[in-house]
Amino acid sequence: MSEPTKEPTTEETKAEEQFFDDEGKPISKKAYKKLQKEKEKAERKAATAAKLAAEKAERESKNVDISSDRYGKLPINQSKERPGVKYEDITTINGSRAGETVTVRVRVQTSRATGGKMCFFVFRQGVATIQGIITADEEKISKQMVKFCVGITPESIVLVEGKIVKPVEEVKSCTISCAELAIEKIHIVSDVQVRLAFTLDDASRAESAFEEDAQLVRVNLDTRLNNRVLDLRTTTNHAIFRLQSAVCLLFREFLIERGFMEIHTPKLIAAASEGGANVFKVSYFKSSAFLAQSPQLYKQMCIAADFGKVFEIAPVFRAEDSNTHRHMTEFMGLDMEMAFNEHYHEVLEVLEDLFVYIFTNLKNRFKDEIETVKRQYHFEDFEFLPKTLRLKFSEGVQMLREAGVEIDDFEDLSTANERLLGKLVKEKYHTDFYVLDKFPLAVRPFYTMPDPNNPGYSNSYDFFMRGEEILSGAQRIHDAELLTERAKLHEVDLSTIQPYIDAFKIGAPPHAGGGIGLERVVMLYLGLGNIRRSSLFPRDPKRLEP
Amino acid sequence: MSEPTKEPTTEETKAEEQFFDDEGKPISKKAYKKLQKEKEKAERKAATAAKLAAEKAERESKNVDISSDRYGKLPINQSKERPGVKYEDITTINGSRAGETVTVRVRVQTSRATGGKMCFFVFRQGVATIQGIITADEEKISKQMVKFCVGITPESIVLVEGKIVKPVEEVKSCTISCAELAIEKIHIVSDVQVRLAFTLDDASRAESAFEEDAQLVRVNLDTRLNNRVLDLRTTTNHAIFRLQSAVCLLFREFLIERGFMEIHTPKLIAAASEGGANVFKVSYFKSSAFLAQSPQLYKQMCIAADFGKVFEIAPVFRAEDSNTHRHMTEFMGLDMEMAFNEHYHEVLEVLEDLFVYIFTNLKNRFKDEIETVKRQYHFEDFEFLPKTLRLKFSEGVQMLREAGVEIDDFEDLSTANERLLGKLVKEKYHTDFYVLDKFPLAVRPFYTMPDPNNPGYSNSYDFFMRGEEILSGAQRIHDAELLTERAKLHEVDLSTIQPYIDAFKIGAPPHAGGGIGLERVVMLYLGLGNIRRSSLFPRDPKRLEP
Repeated sequence: MSEPTKEPTTEETKAEEQFFDDEGKPISKKAYKKLQKEKEKAERKAATAAKLAAEKAERESKNVDISSDRYGKLPINQSKERPGVKYEDITTINGSRAGETVTVRVRVQTSRATGGKMCFFVFRQGVATIQGIITADEEKISKQMVKFCVGITPESIVLVEGKIVKPVEEVKSCTISCAELAIEKIHIVSDVQVRLAFTLDDASRAESAFEEDAQLVRVNLDTRLNNRVLDLRTTTNHAIFRLQSAVCLLFREFLIERGFMEIHTPKLIAAASEGGANVFKVSYFKSSAFLAQSPQLYKQMCIAADFGKVFEIAPVFRAEDSNTHRHMTEFMGLDMEMAFNEHYHEVLEVLEDLFVYIFTNLKNRFKDEIETVKRQYHFEDFEFLPKTLRLKFSEGVQMLREAGVEIDDFEDLSTANERLLGKLVKEKYHTDFYVLDKFPLAVRPFYTMPDPNNPGYSNSYDFFMRGEEILSGAQRIHDAELLTERAKLHEVDLSTIQPYIDAFKIGAPPHAGGGIGLERVVMLYLGLGNIRRSSLFPRDPKRLEP
Repeated sequence: MSEPTKEPTTEETKAEEQFFDDEGKPISKKAYKKLQKEKEKAERKAATAAKLAAEKAERESKNVDISSDRYGKLPINQSKERPGVKYEDITTINGSRAGETVTVRVRVQTSRATGGKMCFFVFRQGVATIQGIITADEEKISKQMVKFCVGITPESIVLVEGKIVKPVEEVKSCTISCAELAIEKIHIVSDVQVRLAFTLDDASRAESAFEEDAQLVRVNLDTRLNNRVLDLRTTTNHAIFRLQSAVCLLFREFLIERGFMEIHTPKLIAAASEGGANVFKVSYFKSSAFLAQSPQLYKQMCIAADFGKVFEIAPVFRAEDSNTHRHMTEFMGLDMEMAFNEHYHEVLEVLEDLFVYIFTNLKNRFKDEIETVKRQYHFEDFEFLPKTLRLKFSEGVQMLREAGVEIDDFEDLSTANERLLGKLVKEKYHTDFYVLDKFPLAVRPFYTMPDPNNPGYSNSYDFFMRGEEILSGAQRIHDAELLTERAKLHEVDLSTIQPYIDAFKIGAPPHAGGGIGLERVVMLYLGLGNIRRSSLFPRDPKRLEP
């Protein structure tokens, strides 16, 4: 047993308090206290260092990195929460905003890694593109994060937080050239799970590039259409369909301003009217129906109901087995019909003015879109006259004859002759747009009004753009008796058009109108060469998908 | 043989010239000449009189009258000439123009003869009416002309030249009450060749009139629809379809202002998508196609193509054998779809604001049309809140339960429950328009995004007007894997929606949207009671004509 330690009495402690340093030498109380503090401080420091070392070891063993909360794939957005972060439109980003941190949601168009420490992106949003850069550093951006960036598949959608930076030199490959994004966070919103049928770069290449380099990958039209959603993402396609939307907008603006009323007529009809050929048959409960080939009969019935001036934008269906660059089985008809006072030229003038309005406003208000399309599909600017050129059909025939074409007075124009006449007109009158009036009666539908002054001709007209027909119209017969007579001559089964003929037995004003093929107008204005390029999801005898 | 007559010699004649009056008395040469002149004059006078008498007799025998060039039936207008006469709009006629002579082309709505010397007309032009009067006189207007006027069949179109006159007292039966037309010329442009199925007066009568007089002729809906062109001529129908046109105009105005783009998607599709039921089959060359039940899949594909915000106005087809007041087999869909950033309520807010915009502008800009409809079909003004009421589906269920309805949490609303809920909402919140959000997942289409916070519910909504559904929409699943899983659960044949699913394999942003039934909006806003009243040429399982 050890001797019990003698404890100092309180008195002793008070009287005899002595202090020693680590080596046993007596020191002052003050010196002792200082020493004690230094010791505690050193211990704390050591403990912290040990803890840090342990954490680092743990992190490395788990492969956690400093950027872990800065990148990754987000769960599917199911609208779980609404934090209210502001998403910027990249078109608002420019050099003057340098230093700002912004959040954008963009597509990855391309990415390029350099070394293992940097990655360059082209980000896309609609028709705009901006460069994004990420560089590994010691503080925030780990090598793992850069590696993640390199692995993001083109066409994935990412949510990026980044600082706006003025680039050293202009970024020529992007539409936003005087600013780029230094990426600080990047998360995948929606990724690409399949191999893409083509790259957007290949799909967007200018036609002229192929002349310079025959080795370049050309994405053919069928491949594009089979992968239409991907194809539609090109800036060219965005511009084409913005312009298609614009043509409808301008068509309506012009007509509504002039007191026209929008109508919606049925596409399901009881009988194959308008001659009966080329019409799609539909199973209709225990019976059958047909798809309207045009709103013709119904818009005329609206005129007989005193609507005066009407228009309709709607699909029309043609069961024609035509596999050409300009035929589809379903297309958009921009139709109008109008009662007139004295002469159908009153209506013809409205139609001519309508096109001048459309062309003028496309040029003025949609310049960027036109230029965008032009970069890929080279075309000459569309020429038109402020006062539309109007020729008689017989004058057209005369011009063709002078050019050596053998053609009968009452023969319809073949596609080749239409094109040739367009060329002749362009040479002589310097316009890509003109009207041919007074077509032969025999080549027009039964409801066309005969010309009272020139036997064999009719009060009907076609409009042409770059030598192709884009509108067909006429004065219609508003008298039930004459209509019946003409229908019989055309061997139309009267029972199929009874409600139509009946509409004219209760009085109708003289009227005329026309139907415009929307996709043809867009195709020809932009020189696209194939109508499938101006239809979102084209339909032809061989294509019903996608 | 007789003795030869002695002829006077020249000398004898010259020397012995003698003159006699009619009685044989000798007179001077001068007197003789005077006499001769008088005789010639009298003869001429008699001849003229005889001629005039003969002409009068001839005229009378042929019934020619002094007004012959002032009335009659014109030949069919074939645009033979264009004299440039100004046709006036009757709405420009008022008392301050009294004394002016104008030319108008109008419908004869009614005519009424008084004595044999006068005839009163109500002339109609669109929604405006004016009184016309003709009175026989000695100078210009013959009794025959008045008789002709009396014989003009109602609904004939006439060209009238007349003097604007201030009536002795206000013409209460016409929209133009402070002026009438004293007819000076009247010609039939187009006449009525059949007995009319009903008069416009009968077709235009206010519903309230039948309560006062049960003997009045009521034109039932089927009769109207069978004779739709005649029926559409009522001012009420003109107003209804002006309002229908207005809803489309406002829908577009609002969305285009917010950067939406108009699209046109195909109605002919390869496979019966969206579940497969209720779809019309079409013969498509040697194969078959189907009619799209909505632009749903295609507008979503446009979102996957980065169009961001799209809308479409187009017919949709439903092969449902529903014979109700609110179902048609073909109707107009006003569709929109929009990518959002954080939460589908961003889209819901756009839709709510859209309706507030439509309702506000209908009220402000189309007041006359609304009043016109109200005169025939009495309805209470449509009530809506500046900030749309949004209830959760579960809250709606709770309200129904409190009203004594037995209903399961996850049961869809029956038509009766929809109506009752509309009534309860109206009582509690004083609005005819509200939104029900978070529908049970099981009652919505396969592409609806599940609610991540409440199992069994979904991120979907319906909009209601006067207790009937007019919009259905949701956040859509933008992830191919989840979409496939949900489609399988709904037993959708995946092969029929492959291009749709593929669109989400190449990345798509979260998005939501909705489809509005145009005719339902118009029917419910105007309290028409039957959707066929807000469709120009309605289609249902039993009606494909006219």
